[in-house]
Amino acid sequence: MSQAFAEPGPRERDGSPETRCSILVAAERLFREIGYRKTTVADIARALRMSPANVYRFFESKKAINEAVAERLIGELETQLAAVADRPGLAAAERLGLFLRTMSRLNTEHLTTERRMFEMVEVAMTESWEVVHHHIERIDRMICRIVADGAASGEFVVDDPLVAARCIHSAFVRFCHPALIAQCADEPGPSLDDMVAFLLRGLGVKAA
Amino acid sequence: MSQAFAEPGPRERDGSPETRCSILVAAERLFREIGYRKTTVADIARALRMSPANVYRFFESKKAINEAVAERLIGELETQLAAVADRPGLAAAERLGLFLRTMSRLNTEHLTTERRMFEMVEVAMTESWEVVHHHIERIDRMICRIVADGAASGEFVVDDPLVAARCIHSAFVRFCHPALIAQCADEPGPSLDDMVAFLLRGLGVKAA
Repeated sequence: MSQAFAEPGPRERDGSPETRCSILVAAERLFREIGYRKTTVADIARALRMSPANVYRFFESKKAINEAVAERLIGELETQLAAVADRPGLAAAERLGLFLRTMSRLNTEHLTTERRMFEMVEVAMTESWEVVHHHIERIDRMICRIVADGAASGEFVVDDPLVAARCIHSAFVRFCHPALIAQCADEPGPSLDDMVAFLLRGLGVKAA
Repeated sequence: MSQAFAEPGPRERDGSPETRCSILVAAERLFREIGYRKTTVADIARALRMSPANVYRFFESKKAINEAVAERLIGELETQLAAVADRPGLAAAERLGLFLRTMSRLNTEHLTTERRMFEMVEVAMTESWEVVHHHIERIDRMICRIVADGAASGEFVVDDPLVAARCIHSAFVRFCHPALIAQCADEPGPSLDDMVAFLLRGLGVKAA
């Protein structure tokens, strides 16, 4: 990469977190507007009236930008889910049901309302498996907290809450994995209600 | 397409099922050897020493050939699974466990021993969703038979065997969906044993 790509503008000199953040905001907007694949680092730089070289000071590649955007979106999703996982005043079974429904809704919304973002998510899932890997682990732990609460209160019958949490998360993949949500949309399959009820029975909750 | 593509050779004149079958066998071999995307209809014709026009008499496109190859492979898989689903002398819980393990093993083998076939399967899952759709429905019905047997014998507690079967199949997707098997190979997730035990508990079977 050329060291002297362009005369540095006023925003070029700082290596501040604000600049990093503004790059991510611009990138995310472009991914939404013209799609991930069509967006270039030069497009992102142009939108911010900075040089591509300055973008590269913060992110070594478009892949790195995509990872950071994906982490931001995943972080927002997880904040909403953690609020459900730790919501006071709900029995564990209700909380788990609400958690799964919320996870399904948020993941589905990202697809149906923002088709273009799906492309970015798909690429992240293929190229940046680490990001997705850590997301899966954090979701496992949130489900584990609910399952452990239910086991402690006698609502659930489980040997190992983390194993149960991983089974539940994995069993629910059709309702939260972007590619599967899209692929299974027209499939007969179980309804969300059927699946939540079945998973609760796997935790020893009697059918209503 | 040209009517008189080439002077018909000895194999050109028959419109027999044998010729159709030999086209599928040659196509499958080429998909294994050089990959689905690289194989052309001309390659398949050349391997059989017939004209591409003759191949097109049986299959209107490469997609149609792929669908027929996928249906053959899926048919073989289903024959093996149906034998497990209807195996006499096993309790329903044992049969369901064996069925799920067999389905996981057969789908995993198709990937690990035959990497090139994975490409064909991926394309079929994207472009020929009808073929996959009917496969899912047939697997649902096989699982449903086992669940209904277990409900009749009092082994399982279920309201609706078909709903339960769809929940089980969907919950097991990580272990039988080609793309997910590949994607989840290095994920922590539940073990096959954990998952089978969890699904049996969802049918009211007490933990061992």
